[in-house]
Amino acid sequence: MQTLVVTDKPSRAIRVEPSYPDPQPGAEEVKVRVHLAGICATDLEIARGYMQFAGVPGHEFVGTVVVGDAAWVGRRVVAEINCVCLTNHCRRRTVLGIAGRDGAFAEYLVVPARNCHEVPDGVTDQQAVFVEPLAAAVHVLDALPPQRARVAVLGSGRLGLLVAQVLARQDGRLEVIGRNPRTLAVCSRHAIEARHVDDIVPAGEHDCVVDCTGAPEGLALAMKLCRPCGMIVLKSTCAEPAAIDLAPAVVNELHIVGNRCGSFPPALQLLAEHRIEVDGLVSAVYPLEQGAAALEAAARPDHIKVLLRPGPP
Amino acid sequence: MQTLVVTDKPSRAIRVEPSYPDPQPGAEEVKVRVHLAGICATDLEIARGYMQFAGVPGHEFVGTVVVGDAAWVGRRVVAEINCVCLTNHCRRRTVLGIAGRDGAFAEYLVVPARNCHEVPDGVTDQQAVFVEPLAAAVHVLDALPPQRARVAVLGSGRLGLLVAQVLARQDGRLEVIGRNPRTLAVCSRHAIEARHVDDIVPAGEHDCVVDCTGAPEGLALAMKLCRPCGMIVLKSTCAEPAAIDLAPAVVNELHIVGNRCGSFPPALQLLAEHRIEVDGLVSAVYPLEQGAAALEAAARPDHIKVLLRPGPP
Repeated sequence: MQTLVVTDKPSRAIRVEPSYPDPQPGAEEVKVRVHLAGICATDLEIARGYMQFAGVPGHEFVGTVVVGDAAWVGRRVVAEINCVCLTNHCRRRTVLGIAGRDGAFAEYLVVPARNCHEVPDGVTDQQAVFVEPLAAAVHVLDALPPQRARVAVLGSGRLGLLVAQVLARQDGRLEVIGRNPRTLAVCSRHAIEARHVDDIVPAGEHDCVVDCTGAPEGLALAMKLCRPCGMIVLKSTCAEPAAIDLAPAVVNELHIVGNRCGSFPPALQLLAEHRIEVDGLVSAVYPLEQGAAALEAAARPDHIKVLLRPGPP
Repeated sequence: MQTLVVTDKPSRAIRVEPSYPDPQPGAEEVKVRVHLAGICATDLEIARGYMQFAGVPGHEFVGTVVVGDAAWVGRRVVAEINCVCLTNHCRRRTVLGIAGRDGAFAEYLVVPARNCHEVPDGVTDQQAVFVEPLAAAVHVLDALPPQRARVAVLGSGRLGLLVAQVLARQDGRLEVIGRNPRTLAVCSRHAIEARHVDDIVPAGEHDCVVDCTGAPEGLALAMKLCRPCGMIVLKSTCAEPAAIDLAPAVVNELHIVGNRCGSFPPALQLLAEHRIEVDGLVSAVYPLEQGAAALEAAARPDHIKVLLRPGPP
C-alpha cells in the first residue's frame, strides 16, 4: 500500500513509500481504510525527530473498518490514539503514529477495536478528522480550575483555534494571542477577542493561560501573562529542548500543567451538534502521494489545517 | 555600618563595605540589630546576577529591634521577607535582600514592623536563623496533594534537608535523592531513606517530587521520577535560563508547581517544640567581615549551612 514514512536511517527523512506492507490486524484489532487524515504540529515535530519515531506517522483520521470484528466491519470510525496492551506482561503503551505503532498517513492502518468510535451520519469526513485534536482541546477543561475570570490562549494555530472555540463556550473573558493575522481573523469570525502578540503588554493579570504555540517562547510569555498562583496549561510538545528560565514560576508560585489527549465522545458530540466550526480551518487537501509537500505546507503560516487523502483520487 | 554588598557597576561583585549608611526606619518600620544571618542558595544566585539585585543581600536572620514602635523595641525577632506597600498607589513588592530592599548581611536592617515575629526564649539565635527556610520547607505541604504514597526530595542541600525533615513527619514513603555523601548521611541520622543519584533508576513511580537541587537538571530528573499525572514542586530558582525539554511534562500530564516562601508561625512552633533539628546543619559561622569567604564556603559541598555574625566579635 501507499504510505508516507519517516525514516531515521541512514538519515532522518520523510517520503512516500509506494509498496509498504499492508498491516495485518492482530487479536482484538481492526483494519481501517483511511478516508482522510489530518496533519498536526506533532507530525511536524516527528518529522524533525520528536519521539525518535520511525514508521508511518499520522494520528488524526477517519476511515471505514474493512477487516476485524464483524460488529465493526463497514462502520465509519475515528480512533483514540493511545493503545494499551491488555496483558499484564506488557507495560508498554504504543501511540498511533507517534510511538511504536504505525499511523494514519497510509491507505490502511490497524487499531485496537476498543479504540474505535463510530462517526454519526451528520458528521462529514472532513469534520470527523478533527475529533482527535478537538478531544485534546476539550481536555483543557479537565485541567482548568472552575473559577477563572480571565483566560488567554497563546497561539492561533490549528490547536489554538480549537481550544479557543471550546473555551469561548465557557464563562469568563477569553483572549487569543497570536502572530498570524489570518488565523487571528478566524477568531474574530467566531466573536472571540484576538490580539497580536506585538500589541500586548503582559501585566500578570490572567488567571489561566493555555499555551498552544508549539514553541518554547510560549511558556516564557505565559509566565509573564499569568497572575501569581495562576495556571499555565501546556499543550505543545517540541522536538528540541529550549532555554527556559523557570524562576518566574517559582517566584509567582505558578501551576504549570501538562495536558495531552482527550476523550473522543464529547468531541464527537460537539461536532454532531455543530457547536464547533471546523470546516473553515481546512486550508488544503493533498493526495497522500504529495504527502511531503503537504507537511511543508502545514508548516507555513498561510495554512491552518492541511489534510491528506490516501487512495485513488 | 559594616555590610556585605553586591554591586552591579562597573561589574558584578560582592565585597565587604565598612561604612555603608545606617538604615533609617520609615513609617511602620523597625530597625533591627542583626545577631546572626544565614546564607542560602538564593544568595549565591544573587551574587551571580539573579534578580539583577544590587545592595545588601541576606534574608534569613535573627536580631533585636533597636528603633521603632515601642512595643517592638528590645524584642528578639525574625521577619518575613516579602514587604508589601500599604498604599494603593504602589503595586510594587520589595523582598528583603532580593528585590528593591537591603537585607540582613549587615549590622542593621530595616523591616516593616508587621513582618516581625518574636522568637520564643527556647529557640536559640542559631535555630531562629532557620525560621525563614523552614517556613519555605513547611510551605511545600500547601502544594502537595493529601494523597501521596511515595514522595522524593531531590537535593540534600540546605533546603532539601529541611523539606525532608518536614515531609518525614507526614504519611507515605519518603526518599531523599542527592549527590553529597555528607548531607545524605544527615538524612540517615534522621532515619530518612537517602539514595545517591547515581544509584537510582527513575521508573516514573513517584507521586510527588520536590526539586530542591537548585540546578536545572533537577527538573529533568524529577520528570523521569514522576508517575503520569504526578506533581513536581519547584523550590529552586537559578540565575540562568537552562535548556529544558518539557515534552515529558505534556506527555505525562505532570503538574509542575512553583513554591516559594512560607508563613513563619508554624516554623517557629516546630523549632520551639524541637521537632525539627537544625543545629546539626550549621557547618560554619563567619564574621561578617569575612562575608565573601563565607559565600564561597557556602557554595562548596563540604558545607551545609554557613552563617554570618555581624558586629564586634
